[in-house]
Amino acid sequence: MEIQRPRGTRDFLFNEMKERKHVENTLRKIFEIYGYNEIKTPIFEELSLFTTKSGEGIKEQIYHFQDKGGRDLALRPELTAPVARLYIKELQKNPKPIKMYYFGSCFRYERPQAGRFRQFWQMGCELIGGKSPGSEAEIIAMAAHCLEELGLEDYEIHIGNLGILRGILNTEGIVGDEQDQVMGLIDKRDVEGLKDLLEKLQIGQKPTEILLKLIDMVGHRDILKDVEEIIKCNENAFNSLKELESLLESLEAFDFSDYIVNLGIARGLDYYSGTVFEIYVHGLGAQKQISGGGTYNLIEIFGGEEVESTGFAFGFDRVMDALRKQDTKIPIAGTVDVFVAPIKEDMKLKAFEIAQKLRKTGVSTDVDLTGRKLKKILSHADHIGTKYVLLVGARDLEEGKITVRNMKSGEQELIDLDNIAPHLKKILNSSDHNSNGSYSPEDGSNE
Amino acid sequence: MEIQRPRGTRDFLFNEMKERKHVENTLRKIFEIYGYNEIKTPIFEELSLFTTKSGEGIKEQIYHFQDKGGRDLALRPELTAPVARLYIKELQKNPKPIKMYYFGSCFRYERPQAGRFRQFWQMGCELIGGKSPGSEAEIIAMAAHCLEELGLEDYEIHIGNLGILRGILNTEGIVGDEQDQVMGLIDKRDVEGLKDLLEKLQIGQKPTEILLKLIDMVGHRDILKDVEEIIKCNENAFNSLKELESLLESLEAFDFSDYIVNLGIARGLDYYSGTVFEIYVHGLGAQKQISGGGTYNLIEIFGGEEVESTGFAFGFDRVMDALRKQDTKIPIAGTVDVFVAPIKEDMKLKAFEIAQKLRKTGVSTDVDLTGRKLKKILSHADHIGTKYVLLVGARDLEEGKITVRNMKSGEQELIDLDNIAPHLKKILNSSDHNSNGSYSPEDGSNE
Repeated sequence: MEIQRPRGTRDFLFNEMKERKHVENTLRKIFEIYGYNEIKTPIFEELSLFTTKSGEGIKEQIYHFQDKGGRDLALRPELTAPVARLYIKELQKNPKPIKMYYFGSCFRYERPQAGRFRQFWQMGCELIGGKSPGSEAEIIAMAAHCLEELGLEDYEIHIGNLGILRGILNTEGIVGDEQDQVMGLIDKRDVEGLKDLLEKLQIGQKPTEILLKLIDMVGHRDILKDVEEIIKCNENAFNSLKELESLLESLEAFDFSDYIVNLGIARGLDYYSGTVFEIYVHGLGAQKQISGGGTYNLIEIFGGEEVESTGFAFGFDRVMDALRKQDTKIPIAGTVDVFVAPIKEDMKLKAFEIAQKLRKTGVSTDVDLTGRKLKKILSHADHIGTKYVLLVGARDLEEGKITVRNMKSGEQELIDLDNIAPHLKKILNSSDHNSNGSYSPEDGSNE
Repeated sequence: MEIQRPRGTRDFLFNEMKERKHVENTLRKIFEIYGYNEIKTPIFEELSLFTTKSGEGIKEQIYHFQDKGGRDLALRPELTAPVARLYIKELQKNPKPIKMYYFGSCFRYERPQAGRFRQFWQMGCELIGGKSPGSEAEIIAMAAHCLEELGLEDYEIHIGNLGILRGILNTEGIVGDEQDQVMGLIDKRDVEGLKDLLEKLQIGQKPTEILLKLIDMVGHRDILKDVEEIIKCNENAFNSLKELESLLESLEAFDFSDYIVNLGIARGLDYYSGTVFEIYVHGLGAQKQISGGGTYNLIEIFGGEEVESTGFAFGFDRVMDALRKQDTKIPIAGTVDVFVAPIKEDMKLKAFEIAQKLRKTGVSTDVDLTGRKLKKILSHADHIGTKYVLLVGARDLEEGKITVRNMKSGEQELIDLDNIAPHLKKILNSSDHNSNGSYSPEDGSNE
């Protein structure tokens, strides 16, 4: 019987895993340089964690089930709600600000399509108890630093502030569910639907015009002068505009100015309150958004004390897609640096012994485990990308020597067996910096 | 409303995550030195993957549910079956041997208790298409190398061969479910239950005596002479004994001899065929087993072509428990090396600028995001374990300088702002090797 992989899921094999690990480690490194600490929460949570945050409608899009004790559980569709739960339970009394990051998989039940899977990965961070606009600026600058470090190109960081749209809507008495509906249509860029809804809600012509103008405000920082002109009579919207301006000023201090102001960002999630941003890579088509975030008040929704919170996440799979589409160079090493090959079957145990000694000094080494003929061993060693093969033969060993074969050049040299580990380390270091997997004991923790 | 974490699950906070990452990276490093490549499979699989492997009874102990399309899915309870599925689908035609490793969480529905959680982690490997006994010996030597590298002490590696017990049982006509029942009782060390069952199965006195003697055979390699005496008239058992002896001979070549021969290991899983091993740490009480593995024929059960397969896994949480119980030193760095503190609020943007410059050179740096008074900033920087604080003051800056405060000694020195990044790198390198999170650009990929 053949058992299939569940629909919409993936297996990751050797090279793809190496690429993903490289990207994961690069993002991890940048997050840690900015002072973020990793946390981990469970794969499943109580279903109510997600319905409280996103409404009962979310049940349609997620995996949820009852466990044997009758508890309603859900595979997490995102990680901000679990992190908020963790913060309230474990960290609320800790000194602020608290900087956390996570990397983990999330799940959604929807029709699989290009770039959308039922299990997908998010890497993001939450900054709790910092003050805006510095906190928001730092997060946006960090997101840009991550992409720069990865070598991604042609991405656009769009920044907006939900308070401007919400200010107008609040003044018109469009609040609660009605406001969510309006924001949802803006998020989808459904202008016709938006016009219909605004008419149905009996908003006057003037505010309708203001809203339609605002959501088209996308461009250089200069456009904020026009925005000020449009919204100057609405105090709440005006205050939000000033917030946005201070954010851009802080961003300058963080040495980042390559953004696009976009007042049409709605994020479609009711717990975002002020600053929002999204990152797009246009080559990705419908799945162009690789990251999103902003300032939110989720912690109060879950019953915690009021505290300023900002966060964002990379859609990890989309970042991988973007790098692949752009042919970004991701360093992929072979499996091991050295392969130990017995010339004849009776040298097998001796080959094990030599391989094991090399491994104990940190040289990544494989050894023949099949008992095949030398030619086949060499072809396997070549297949897995080994740089040097040690040929273990009785006659060489009698003289205390071993033959080292350079798999690229085909050159062979006879080396003293006692000196083999230092010799290999030397030639591996000099041949290139991209040694496959060998480590020096001085490396210490490889974190 | 307060939402709880689901029963039997855990959140991992900052320091615990750092410890777990250190252990993960150490195991990863050793696996890669031996030529293993990482793979990843989905969190859920078709339920039939696990019932085919372990029988319908497994449903009682796992999380399974129907998705919205009526598919029976299960959160994976272990990773050998998913890897076998992946191998058959993706790798069956690849050159052998194939060396894979995985690190991921698994799930079981059972009463939570000390050391047993509903979500737990496994790190293990599978070697497919190598030949015994070299492959088995290499895996056991690698498991020992992992524990040595972690600094774990007082562990025991027990090695057995299921073919010896199975040989006796087969000769007596105890096969299939009956054999599984017998092996299950041996696995639980339920000697009374075993005696009752053997009587019920009407095995004669002689084979009963042999079985009871064999399962008590635990000790030095020398005991194999006694075993030979006991089983010499059973050809299958005798051949398995010879297999075990060749394994021990290969282990010697892999420079590992600190094992205990244990013929009472039954592993309780019917797909193990010959060599088996388990690793115990006695301080852990009932959860003393931190690892187990052996040679199996799962791939044929799933409809793949016959191929020799050996694998093992560490119960990652139990390894963590064992290290904690033994107070093993796990290096835990603070969050960042440097904290940039504005002396007054009006230096805030300047502080952002300096922090950002340091980060771009790879120095792990935090900066005040709260607008608090200097005293509070210093206390926060101290709390998160920062080594140096940069005091950003208007008067120093006018002279192009900045004050660097050593948080341990309290000493302060005035440094040229232009020279601050190289200066910090120098003092961070010289002060100790355990720099918190800073990276040199030369580090390249941090894998």
